[in-house]
Amino acid sequence: MTTQKRTVIYVSDGTGITAETLGHGLLSQFEGIEFRPLRFPFQDSEEKTKDCLARINEVRQREGERPIVIMTQTNADLSAILHQADAFFIDLFDAFIAPLEQELGARYTRAVGRSHGHANPEYNSRIAAMNFALAHDDGVSDNDLKSADIILVGVSRSGKTPTSLYLSLQFSLKAANYPLIPEDFERDQLPSRLQPYRNKLFGLTIDPEQLQRIRTERRPNSKYASLENCRYEVAAAEKMMRREGIKWFDTTSRSIEELAVQLMQELNHER
Amino acid sequence: MTTQKRTVIYVSDGTGITAETLGHGLLSQFEGIEFRPLRFPFQDSEEKTKDCLARINEVRQREGERPIVIMTQTNADLSAILHQADAFFIDLFDAFIAPLEQELGARYTRAVGRSHGHANPEYNSRIAAMNFALAHDDGVSDNDLKSADIILVGVSRSGKTPTSLYLSLQFSLKAANYPLIPEDFERDQLPSRLQPYRNKLFGLTIDPEQLQRIRTERRPNSKYASLENCRYEVAAAEKMMRREGIKWFDTTSRSIEELAVQLMQELNHER
Repeated sequence: MTTQKRTVIYVSDGTGITAETLGHGLLSQFEGIEFRPLRFPFQDSEEKTKDCLARINEVRQREGERPIVIMTQTNADLSAILHQADAFFIDLFDAFIAPLEQELGARYTRAVGRSHGHANPEYNSRIAAMNFALAHDDGVSDNDLKSADIILVGVSRSGKTPTSLYLSLQFSLKAANYPLIPEDFERDQLPSRLQPYRNKLFGLTIDPEQLQRIRTERRPNSKYASLENCRYEVAAAEKMMRREGIKWFDTTSRSIEELAVQLMQELNHER
Repeated sequence: MTTQKRTVIYVSDGTGITAETLGHGLLSQFEGIEFRPLRFPFQDSEEKTKDCLARINEVRQREGERPIVIMTQTNADLSAILHQADAFFIDLFDAFIAPLEQELGARYTRAVGRSHGHANPEYNSRIAAMNFALAHDDGVSDNDLKSADIILVGVSRSGKTPTSLYLSLQFSLKAANYPLIPEDFERDQLPSRLQPYRNKLFGLTIDPEQLQRIRTERRPNSKYASLENCRYEVAAAEKMMRREGIKWFDTTSRSIEELAVQLMQELNHER
């Protein structure tokens, strides 16, 4: 199978992050096509926009195929200049922002440093959640457990850290981690500090062979990374979670996104 | 000013992450409106979709205003059911996915566990980048510095960690941090280990008073957090970066998103 290659051009009078996150989400679902991103953020003048237009047409010439332009341009004049390009357009402003303005009776603002910035409560809660996840990765105080929105347990390298960071950035959730270690399995009970928080406690598990591969990258030829030990830890953790009635998810073939969404759903049921 | 409150309902036959990231980006730019999210992921049957429809209409009844429904539903029949709701629709499939399928001559796939999942090279490079950022936060080997795509320097708590994590998740960049510490200022030169990597080295700085507030949360009443020390460190770091010709950014009034995009632009110029 030959891989199709297409250039994706993100254009915005702001950061272009909205355009790019949409682009990621849409384009990653088209298999067998390799997308090469080009970014033109902060396109807030006619001069910049004309340069950008020239660059888009260059790509069109060179590649013989229309580039995909994904854009959020709030200035109608600049938008019109860009639309002269020979490209396939995904124009968020035309499609959604203008109708939303009408529906909400409010203006879409594009003040750099304000909209995403420090004065925005939603932004601040995302950053606070991310800092929480970073500060409470692998080892937390009782106070931290109390203030967490969700606590993930699982053996070392089962995916707790990326999952909690994603939960914090995407959903502004304060996510704490609690690693299950061999001492917990010897005692054969859930660490007592976790007992009060059953309703926000979820487990992660992983296929032992994949765990072996991940751990081997970190500590080759260690007991820690051996298949035998990985099998033992995973089995012991699953046994404990089953007995304690902790719902758990297998991270082996799930993306972080899927995992995060499923955890959100479970958490909402518990609430 | 009274705050308008609106309910935003994310519906998808997948995770709904694409819909939700778009929603974040779009709605955060409307000031003075509080948006409450409701999520209906994995809507892959008629039964679930009819339940979801009923919930949307309930919200409509209770609030007296149309909820905003942001959706990615690849199944046309299920999409048609949902569109019976009395809501304001942002329908990504109708608007973009169907036209994209035509442009690319390829089908939009929605295979859970595959599209975002472990078999996807772009997904894997994002996760690898995130793990790199986590593993190389505050303290890196020469080898790590070599393999990094970008290295951020700055005083403790100037914003290096959240920025590098965001760069990894959003742009799949391997971002390393290198904290500038008082010993560096006494020697009054850039740590020699960083010298070979000037072309991927950027600085972060911050207003000393904001730095004092951030550090005080961590270590109240310490010399570390004192305004005097914060002023000294920031001035010394800026002096060093200026002399060494390291381009730096002030994180005080910039969001992570803006900062990340500006760093990407600089990095592309250097390349």
